[in-house]
Amino acid sequence: MNLKSVLKEIKPSKEEEKEMNSFVSKILKTSRKISKIIKPIVCGSIAKDTWLSRRYELDLFLLFNPSFSKKQLEKKGLEIAKNIIKDLKGRYQIAFAEHPYLRGWVGKFQVDIVPCYSIKDPEKIKSAVDRTPHHVRFVKRNLKKPDDVRILKQFCIANNCYGADVKTLGFSGYLCELLIIKYGSFEKLVKDASKWRAGKMISFRKVNKESILKKFKTPLIVIDPVDKNRNVSAVVSVENFYKFVRYSKDFVRNPKKEFFFPRKTKPYSIDEIRKEVQKRGTRWYIIKFKKLKLLEDILYPQLRRCLSSIEKELEKNGFKVMNKCFWCNNNCVLAFEMETWQVPKISKNIGPNVFSKHAEEFLKHYKENKVYIEKENWVVERERKFTTVLHFLKNLLNKSKKDLLEKGIPNKIAPLLGKSELTAGGDVLKTITKLPEEFRSFLREWFERDLNVI
Amino acid sequence: MNLKSVLKEIKPSKEEEKEMNSFVSKILKTSRKISKIIKPIVCGSIAKDTWLSRRYELDLFLLFNPSFSKKQLEKKGLEIAKNIIKDLKGRYQIAFAEHPYLRGWVGKFQVDIVPCYSIKDPEKIKSAVDRTPHHVRFVKRNLKKPDDVRILKQFCIANNCYGADVKTLGFSGYLCELLIIKYGSFEKLVKDASKWRAGKMISFRKVNKESILKKFKTPLIVIDPVDKNRNVSAVVSVENFYKFVRYSKDFVRNPKKEFFFPRKTKPYSIDEIRKEVQKRGTRWYIIKFKKLKLLEDILYPQLRRCLSSIEKELEKNGFKVMNKCFWCNNNCVLAFEMETWQVPKISKNIGPNVFSKHAEEFLKHYKENKVYIEKENWVVERERKFTTVLHFLKNLLNKSKKDLLEKGIPNKIAPLLGKSELTAGGDVLKTITKLPEEFRSFLREWFERDLNVI
Repeated sequence: MNLKSVLKEIKPSKEEEKEMNSFVSKILKTSRKISKIIKPIVCGSIAKDTWLSRRYELDLFLLFNPSFSKKQLEKKGLEIAKNIIKDLKGRYQIAFAEHPYLRGWVGKFQVDIVPCYSIKDPEKIKSAVDRTPHHVRFVKRNLKKPDDVRILKQFCIANNCYGADVKTLGFSGYLCELLIIKYGSFEKLVKDASKWRAGKMISFRKVNKESILKKFKTPLIVIDPVDKNRNVSAVVSVENFYKFVRYSKDFVRNPKKEFFFPRKTKPYSIDEIRKEVQKRGTRWYIIKFKKLKLLEDILYPQLRRCLSSIEKELEKNGFKVMNKCFWCNNNCVLAFEMETWQVPKISKNIGPNVFSKHAEEFLKHYKENKVYIEKENWVVERERKFTTVLHFLKNLLNKSKKDLLEKGIPNKIAPLLGKSELTAGGDVLKTITKLPEEFRSFLREWFERDLNVI
Repeated sequence: MNLKSVLKEIKPSKEEEKEMNSFVSKILKTSRKISKIIKPIVCGSIAKDTWLSRRYELDLFLLFNPSFSKKQLEKKGLEIAKNIIKDLKGRYQIAFAEHPYLRGWVGKFQVDIVPCYSIKDPEKIKSAVDRTPHHVRFVKRNLKKPDDVRILKQFCIANNCYGADVKTLGFSGYLCELLIIKYGSFEKLVKDASKWRAGKMISFRKVNKESILKKFKTPLIVIDPVDKNRNVSAVVSVENFYKFVRYSKDFVRNPKKEFFFPRKTKPYSIDEIRKEVQKRGTRWYIIKFKKLKLLEDILYPQLRRCLSSIEKELEKNGFKVMNKCFWCNNNCVLAFEMETWQVPKISKNIGPNVFSKHAEEFLKHYKENKVYIEKENWVVERERKFTTVLHFLKNLLNKSKKDLLEKGIPNKIAPLLGKSELTAGGDVLKTITKLPEEFRSFLREWFERDLNVI
């Protein structure tokens, strides 16, 4: 296949570029007019010529002299930012990363205005955003094929692993740029990536591999060329790393345009779901609740933790979880595929070895219970509080916020669970019927996922 | 309570003693007449005056000069033994321990005639039986209260832990004697024993406790006073050790004659079993087969191993075993109380960490299966062969002897399983109905066992 045909669809047209350039000139001019104490510079993909068509997203950094205090920088910075957008007759809102920044909209352009310090040595920065101008400089100096970055970004987007946000846990734009700089081209990158394994390390200078591997325990380690103490790919999850490897492998073996513009996954029909579940012989439980207004940056990590906490509680009570997943639009859905959904009224717990010094404690603790010996271990039989998953989950969801927090349910989710809807077994199909078809597409992807990279 | 009342029932009467003494004289005389090359001596509880009423069991050792070869000793020994019993007009059969010995019956007396070497230093013996005459000498010299040994033996008998045989795995006669020598009396012994914990060490000379504990990893360690490299209580199982502790404790707290002469456990009624199982919410599986003629020394260890092997296979296939036990009369019964008796059609197996060097192997091995990532581990989904315990056990029991041996089923049991009867759930009650009521007594003891020694 010819990658040019991909590029044709994702590279900004001459027209778009002209529009963007004139907007950039305008906003820089306005910035200089508004304030003399800052130096405005454009960062992000626009500055590096790696932006994608129809993505009119601009990063404007306001560089302050390090003599300003953090407080002054934040206050002044936001003020200047507001005035810039006002002057351009746009609208804005305050957003938060490591410190506050301003997100503005002017016509079709989205502008993130970020105040930061101008610091020469990127290893001596005061906050993470101060590094960005150095990134821009490094990429501009070293990137020879910006179009290959565009192709790589589109490849990641198509495979749901573009973006370093907490929802995606994928590949950032800067990471894509570094990978193309390192490998020279998209094709060389995917050829190599198809053989990557967890613990893959990439750096631009000579480094001690062993000490790096000890320091950064992530599947992909890319040492930031402007700061050797930073791992650019720290956020990439193991799953996304292997997704990338798998798709690279598949692409190398059979390069097709579909890798960049995949067809939407066909949603499961309700009947297909029923058959699939029947084939697996498992039982499903779905917890559905209104999302409310929660920033994705908060929602997604909390949903992940919530899922794990509920799983832990289920397992503690003898219910084995085969699989779990979550999904969100206006509603949040937590789904559990259970291997065991009913357990006996008594539970047997294996205690310490009879020769262990903890044996005495155990015997004292279970003085009222039936205790005996199996092989060389003390064993206790106790009555269970819950013998079915349904009963257990009903009880859990109705606990007080305080109790839920104690069980590891995150604070924003805890108050939502009381009003959640719980369905089990065949009834989950009714819940699924009421959800948008995207959920059924998600389910198919989830059932059919396979990450073997051999 | 007065222990004398116990003694009254278990100590041989004057009459019995007289009979025994005259039989001993007679058999010694006969032995000397039959052969001049051996020195006959009486060992066992008779020699030590610790025998129990109505137990007319005699150990006659034929001491050979160490210049005889092992072969000569065995051949000559058995020949002499046969002639002794013939001369006394008794009947006999050959039995086997470390080497062959002869078991004879003369009137109401049972005589084990054991050829062995006469060796001065018990640490230089040629085979285990050569040690016995030294044991007798030590006990005769040191035991001041033989009646307390009788009481202790009866205490153990009553609690099913008397005998070092592989069926019982309990306290041998010699061990009982040593315990009374050590503690001075039965009452002092049980007072101390009620506080014993696994790793209890008893010796008659100064020893290095730490090195002993490393050398002998049994709950009770009693260093043989005639051989410091031997642990007299090596065979006592953890369970029997704690049974002894528990009963000692109960006895000290509330001394009653019942500890020596317990009432027979009332058998469960079928209805009680049904209710108990219902209360526990588990499901039972019983495998019943004809015992055939098997020595207990072979049968019991094999039944134990068989039970463990089947358990291991059940667990491997996702079926969790809550409890297991076996019982024997003409029939052998293997019983499994299951926590899980049905599992989904697929199984999820957690593989190596993605960073592990074994990951590659795993991925290659499961190339044809659905593989994905959970947390930091590779995971594989496979189809199960068996989704119910019943189906699984039916298949197992019908396997060839070769296949069963491979799965760890012992060789004498393996050929019996093919003709076994398998019942499950409510049907086990039908099987139990056909078994003698002793089995239902056994079940009650088993359900109600509690070994907490606090």
